[in-house]
Amino acid sequence: SATHRIAVLPGDGVGPEICDRAIDVLGKITELYGHSFEFTHADVGGIAYEKHGQHLPEATLELCRNSSAILFGCVGGPVDQQHVPKWKDAEKIALLGLRKAFNLAVNLRPAAVYPFLSNLSPLKDSIVNKGIDVVIVRELVSGIYFGDHSTAEDGKSAVDVMSYSWDEVVTPVRFAFESAMLRKKNLTVVDKANVLDTSRLWRKVALDLAKQYPEVTVNFMYIDNAVMQIIKDPSQFDVVVTGNMFGDILSDAASVLPGSLGLMPSASLSTVEGENTIHMYEPIHGTAPDIAGKNLVNPIAQILSAAMMLRYSYNLEAEARCIEKAVEKVLADGGRTGDLLGGVKGQSSMSCTEMSAAII
Amino acid sequence: SATHRIAVLPGDGVGPEICDRAIDVLGKITELYGHSFEFTHADVGGIAYEKHGQHLPEATLELCRNSSAILFGCVGGPVDQQHVPKWKDAEKIALLGLRKAFNLAVNLRPAAVYPFLSNLSPLKDSIVNKGIDVVIVRELVSGIYFGDHSTAEDGKSAVDVMSYSWDEVVTPVRFAFESAMLRKKNLTVVDKANVLDTSRLWRKVALDLAKQYPEVTVNFMYIDNAVMQIIKDPSQFDVVVTGNMFGDILSDAASVLPGSLGLMPSASLSTVEGENTIHMYEPIHGTAPDIAGKNLVNPIAQILSAAMMLRYSYNLEAEARCIEKAVEKVLADGGRTGDLLGGVKGQSSMSCTEMSAAII
Ligand SMILES: CC(C)[C@H](C(=O)O)[C@@H](O)C(=O)O
Ligand SMILES: CC(C)[C@H](C(=O)O)[C@@H](O)C(=O)O
Repeated sequence: SATHRIAVLPGDGVGPEICDRAIDVLGKITELYGHSFEFTHADVGGIAYEKHGQHLPEATLELCRNSSAILFGCVGGPVDQQHVPKWKDAEKIALLGLRKAFNLAVNLRPAAVYPFLSNLSPLKDSIVNKGIDVVIVRELVSGIYFGDHSTAEDGKSAVDVMSYSWDEVVTPVRFAFESAMLRKKNLTVVDKANVLDTSRLWRKVALDLAKQYPEVTVNFMYIDNAVMQIIKDPSQFDVVVTGNMFGDILSDAASVLPGSLGLMPSASLSTVEGENTIHMYEPIHGTAPDIAGKNLVNPIAQILSAAMMLRYSYNLEAEARCIEKAVEKVLADGGRTGDLLGGVKGQSSMSCTEMSAAII
Repeated sequence: SATHRIAVLPGDGVGPEICDRAIDVLGKITELYGHSFEFTHADVGGIAYEKHGQHLPEATLELCRNSSAILFGCVGGPVDQQHVPKWKDAEKIALLGLRKAFNLAVNLRPAAVYPFLSNLSPLKDSIVNKGIDVVIVRELVSGIYFGDHSTAEDGKSAVDVMSYSWDEVVTPVRFAFESAMLRKKNLTVVDKANVLDTSRLWRKVALDLAKQYPEVTVNFMYIDNAVMQIIKDPSQFDVVVTGNMFGDILSDAASVLPGSLGLMPSASLSTVEGENTIHMYEPIHGTAPDIAGKNLVNPIAQILSAAMMLRYSYNLEAEARCIEKAVEKVLADGGRTGDLLGGVKGQSSMSCTEMSAAII
């Protein structure tokens, strides 16, 4: 079968380590299933600024264009260094740039809690034990993050514009319906339709598409209520779909439920059709400068992102599941990187390479 | 001393009951401290629509104008009745209308967890026991909820505008600094300054005001991170200040931490100066149509709102504390309305009137 060309953009901090470990796991998949992956690295973020004077160099975009998927690490510097040119706006420039360049309109963030890790969740066992298995579908290239931004010349006022067109809304909502069909057929559309016109447009689109998916139960929920419900009773959610800003907030709220960001993958799917469909995969955690380069970071988020890549870019469902099962087995057997210890005394922790070796 | 004229707007559902119980408690304060309160009722919400054809009748606004404070219950109908004219947009029209009419620019939402009620919190004891005592200050009359909203004629696109001026930001931020000075001197400004121009304006204003409050430690946090932190480690927060939309979301997230919305008061403070300063007080919960009129609702949120009224409208700190201590004592002694049972077997619950009687 053809060689899959993957652009690897490790970025800053722990980015290189987690990308290496994901590549190790994909190596095992090659061995087991006989696929062929070709990995080419390029710089992004602070490291790219340092070496090429830009956070998202053209050469990096060019590599991505010549690849069939992007494996992205993470980008950004220490909290107290944000003013330094190397770090200033690094994450925003890299992420928003890539999202726009490849029209990554649909962001997928699964948040499931492994029952045997319920001790790590900030939520009480009585809530976790009802089962938490949500997928949040976030619109990623429109809305207020991509609208006009302006500040008055005197610096005394500012405006940001949230705008949505029918087509911009259809893409993520259709994807969410399709996802729901493969899951519990339960879709929650999150908005602020009591106040915002864009939210009313979202509802109209969802109601229109709902006709094509009569088996899916559709609920509408205001964003303020949704953040409450995701804390009080996350078991009620199956698939959630929402706009860029609400999705940013709600998916981050959901991401703390499993107890460590080190477990959380994501996929950003391109809406460009045909050969030029280039999706991007990344962990949701940041660069963790304090532990970078120390072989301490949990590689699972990135390894699960690689599994999502197999599923969504290469349609290799069995291979994706193989990785997911291996991760689950290692965790079920008690394998823990430092972030997963959860204050349990006397438990010893694995290094990053030990964790990926165990998964392999 | 002068008679304090209070406009009582009970609204729908459980609104009338909780207002009556708050008035009972204020009656006791009169008895103990010799103040004089005069309560005049007016309709708002569904009941107002039914009786006067409008959710926020002019006569109601007129009563408020002739009062020195507004005690507001709650507004709105059952979830499945939202399309009926009586309920359609009832909450939005009533609340946004009152906020605009009296320029209620500063919304105050305290979220503290009583240690002896930690079993009710969705969060694990290990998190709750670190202490949760946050005040969220939300800007309430500007931002995207009050910006231009428009939908294209063909219904295929829509726009909402978020705008802020320096003055609109200064008011809540100054209030937040003042609050922090009376508390742990720790202020968190929540925004999305990596993407939004309005957020950068918020930061500029906060940095500018910070010079006048050198004792206050100021942190900046993105909204996506803030919702994560409020779940993972709410003990880090003292005073939080943010815009209308982010405040809506974040304060609702915080409101679930104590385990029952029936405990959560709020104040919306007017920026109109002098005699025409008319603040509004209300519980954060909704109308709970299923238990309305059954003497089952927890009156504490509204009773604590009345305490906030004594503090902010009448500068009666000792009286406010008297109510707050009484509430705390009843709860510490095991007094529980139905919402506070938390699945503990064999515990019997109090009615609404029993709870207010105990507090009195
Ligand atoms: C860096 C930032 C612009 C970005 C966003 O908010 O979209 C990030 O927070 C995310 O959620 O991927
Ligand atoms: C009813 C609605 C417009 C209102 C808001 O979002 O401002 C409510 O949710 C609130 O938070 O008081």
